[in-house]
Amino acid sequence: MKAKTSRTQGSRYYPKRYDLDPASRDAILDEGLVCQVAFQLEGQPMLIPTSYCREGNTLYLHGSVGSHFFMQMAKGIPVCVSVTLVDGLVLARSVFHHSMNYRSVVAFGKTRLVDSPEERWRAAELFTEHVMPGRWAEARHPNASELQKTMFIAVEIEEASVKFRAHGVADDPEDMHLGVWAGVLPLRLSPQAPEPDPEGQTGVPLPDYVRDYRR
Amino acid sequence: MKAKTSRTQGSRYYPKRYDLDPASRDAILDEGLVCQVAFQLEGQPMLIPTSYCREGNTLYLHGSVGSHFFMQMAKGIPVCVSVTLVDGLVLARSVFHHSMNYRSVVAFGKTRLVDSPEERWRAAELFTEHVMPGRWAEARHPNASELQKTMFIAVEIEEASVKFRAHGVADDPEDMHLGVWAGVLPLRLSPQAPEPDPEGQTGVPLPDYVRDYRR
Repeated sequence: MKAKTSRTQGSRYYPKRYDLDPASRDAILDEGLVCQVAFQLEGQPMLIPTSYCREGNTLYLHGSVGSHFFMQMAKGIPVCVSVTLVDGLVLARSVFHHSMNYRSVVAFGKTRLVDSPEERWRAAELFTEHVMPGRWAEARHPNASELQKTMFIAVEIEEASVKFRAHGVADDPEDMHLGVWAGVLPLRLSPQAPEPDPEGQTGVPLPDYVRDYRR
Repeated sequence: MKAKTSRTQGSRYYPKRYDLDPASRDAILDEGLVCQVAFQLEGQPMLIPTSYCREGNTLYLHGSVGSHFFMQMAKGIPVCVSVTLVDGLVLARSVFHHSMNYRSVVAFGKTRLVDSPEERWRAAELFTEHVMPGRWAEARHPNASELQKTMFIAVEIEEASVKFRAHGVADDPEDMHLGVWAGVLPLRLSPQAPEPDPEGQTGVPLPDYVRDYRR
């Protein structure tokens, strides 16, 4: 990654909320399930929420070969990709100091159509394992027709801004006596009871990687 | 809202995944905690993850008056705002039919600096109540100095695309016999045990709206 530029410069107000460690960037990217991809189209900023996966400095996106947005990205265009994880609500005594605990990555790069069969296959495996580790070894792999319908786009991360808040209430001293409950309500994206497909082969046991799933 | 245009046109592959009902749009916007705001800056697509709230057709954003991004938005620029809720992981027998259940809004509009004191105050209340209904009545309200440090930006939604997936596994008939577990793993952003601020006034009871919180 290049040094910080005006695209990724931390705020003068909250320098503590920026993290320069690439490992923090990757931990956030690897935990997220959905990213947001921004690009410009005929003078209009556009956003696509989509799934993704990462290997090294490369983010992979995939979509239908018929998708308008993916056809734009196949041309090789500048994009901004964001992943945000919400960790909790910070309830201060004063409205002004209410906040959220979160971790976010905003990454800049250019799109590239992935065309080598090896990299496309690798991306398919990465996608599956990003969402559900263990799944690639069990599920039926893509066939030629399915691969033909899928476009893979790579974004090499040129630079990225990592931002987070991960602490408790920060009220002003003169508000500390107020009889208002203050604290953090942590939030977590939690798996609920798995819902087996009512169709198909019966008696297939629930895999451990589903039972014990957590991000 | 205007009719659908090329910005919000549904895909030819998944027409069922688009929803034209404004109530669906608002339900998603009212459940989300963080939105992503895309705009163009000097030829570069930019993204800001930020909190927001909604009233009618207006989204409100807020930030520090010193924020570079908010100063851009104060000028009145076209933006694209996205809110995405992840509802579950769809595990098919085939890798190709893996999917996610989700609900998303992608909205287009132009930013406007909110400068009337009444609308600014209203936005402050909406923000507080959007994140934690019941909080505005208890927490100390913003004072003049705090208000001076806060910029409120409005985005009137010109048009919006509502997209979702909310069904089970959709494998091909020829894969139904495979002995691979298939189903949906629902995900939910769940509150964990509240963490009271160790400082300040002691013995303040946990409010019902925190104890019973759910999105």
